Amino acid sequence: MAASYAYLGPEGTFTEVALRTLPEAATRELVPYVSVQSALDAVRNGEAEAAFVPIENSVEGGITTTLDELVAGKPLMIYREVLLSITFALLVRPGTELSDIKTVTAHPAAQPQVRNWLRANLPDAVWESAASNADGARLVQEGRYDAAFAGEFAAARYGLEALETGIHDAENAQTRFVLVGRPARPAAPTGADKTSVVLWQRDDHPGGLRDLLGEFATRGINLMLLQSRPTGAGIGNYCFCIDAEGHISDRRVAEALMGLKRICLQVRFLGSYPRADVAVADVRRPLPGTSDEEFVAAADWVARCQDGRF
Amino acid sequence: MAASYAYLGPEGTFTEVALRTLPEAATRELVPYVSVQSALDAVRNGEAEAAFVPIENSVEGGITTTLDELVAGKPLMIYREVLLSITFALLVRPGTELSDIKTVTAHPAAQPQVRNWLRANLPDAVWESAASNADGARLVQEGRYDAAFAGEFAAARYGLEALETGIHDAENAQTRFVLVGRPARPAAPTGADKTSVVLWQRDDHPGGLRDLLGEFATRGINLMLLQSRPTGAGIGNYCFCIDAEGHISDRRVAEALMGLKRICLQVRFLGSYPRADVAVADVRRPLPGTSDEEFVAAADWVARCQDGRF
Repeated sequence: MAASYAYLGPEGTFTEVALRTLPEAATRELVPYVSVQSALDAVRNGEAEAAFVPIENSVEGGITTTLDELVAGKPLMIYREVLLSITFALLVRPGTELSDIKTVTAHPAAQPQVRNWLRANLPDAVWESAASNADGARLVQEGRYDAAFAGEFAAARYGLEALETGIHDAENAQTRFVLVGRPARPAAPTGADKTSVVLWQRDDHPGGLRDLLGEFATRGINLMLLQSRPTGAGIGNYCFCIDAEGHISDRRVAEALMGLKRICLQVRFLGSYPRADVAVADVRRPLPGTSDEEFVAAADWVARCQDGRF
Repeated sequence: MAASYAYLGPEGTFTEVALRTLPEAATRELVPYVSVQSALDAVRNGEAEAAFVPIENSVEGGITTTLDELVAGKPLMIYREVLLSITFALLVRPGTELSDIKTVTAHPAAQPQVRNWLRANLPDAVWESAASNADGARLVQEGRYDAAFAGEFAAARYGLEALETGIHDAENAQTRFVLVGRPARPAAPTGADKTSVVLWQRDDHPGGLRDLLGEFATRGINLMLLQSRPTGAGIGNYCFCIDAEGHISDRRVAEALMGLKRICLQVRFLGSYPRADVAVADVRRPLPGTSDEEFVAAADWVARCQDGRF
């Protein structure tokens, strides 16, 4: 089973569609799991080589179940990310018309993305949450609800038809998925990479978080995500999940992580991996003074000064 | 109806219990609404004087529905906050024993707080989400599920009994609620206050967020919450909900807000209100150089310099 990928199931959800865009998925057995937690546990206990789960959504923000699983427990590492545009279809049993629909269902995460559409088109329909969008489609097939919001690709699998497609309240609604495995040496930089870490502050004082972010800013590193997550120690106690531009083998990123390691209570490295949102050619140049060459030249200069050879 | 408070219903939830701890609630009609959105809309359209909704949870973090409602739409303002410790009871129909329980229900937000308890005590029970914890209790009363996680206070209302009480996976599990009204002059400072704002960055560049936080740090202001929320413009586009120590009438807070107004694309003021987590006597002293007196003295000194009278 070590050559299998676990993913957040069931089959026929956006997660499976996103996973199948990865070339390496074609050579693995893809095994659906009932929850993010169980998919990641399968990796932790060696049952699966890697797990594929959603981690960020342009409407709902960071997906807290996934972040919390990566923040705690046995360390895991992110190897790949996939961005998928999300639009919903309204799936019904053949012959159903819009005026027949009294109940609708989908995963709770779908609700904010179809809310305005529902208000405009089915203001009186009663919403019931389903365990997944695919599960909602199955419940429509069984006659328990009148309609389900799901990917259009789910219609065929459940003998339903799409009464409406392209439903999305927010333009550019995207979900980001990650392929997570056990810690190992990160793949070599591609030139368009991202590094994920979790930071715990040593104590709570004015400027504490500003100083953590300063470790990135001082080295010209842009942040792509900053999501606070409760540590469980009560209201106001948070750690920070951060995605930063660059690869841990870039000198500026390595030095920022060293700075954070010195000043944080704890730093968890979650991986350096290729960015899905930008081509290598479109990556912005490092700020002046923050390229690898300049870091090396500066280190040489300090060494020469220490030797009295400047 | 202007003297009514809307709250996230139905009756018999933690929200109602928290609302009733506010002295002003005793003189108002308390009206349950089906969602955070509808409760806040009742305030926006003048149907209710204020709305009482959950905003932060020590297990789940910021409550995104509430934050997103405050971030967008017609401006609203926070007037009060309440902290409530959350522990669940397992409510069943009289006579039910633990071994009879095949299905359990509650609001999805309850799940992470009872997950470990469930795994240890009812590993085979099937979880079904309910619209609210009180609604879950009602569904148990009606025989649709065997047990519901809810506040112990909900047992009597639904003719149920508590098979187990004090269930909470995380120690110190607390929820923070806020009383939200239409914008008006904030109440005078109490000495232990909090200020909430939403910040939109002007552009995305290395150090951008560090610079925003610098406006607080430079004036010795501690942050109590930083929660990123998607702007809807696609993955990686976030605004920041921030709670800071102090009151907008404190010189250091007013000056930080002026600094943010200058450098941000947009700043939304969400109110200055008394803190529920600390007594006035326990508020830490401002850092040296950041008291109101020192701000006034420094402004006087600059004015004298500008006049050549130093």
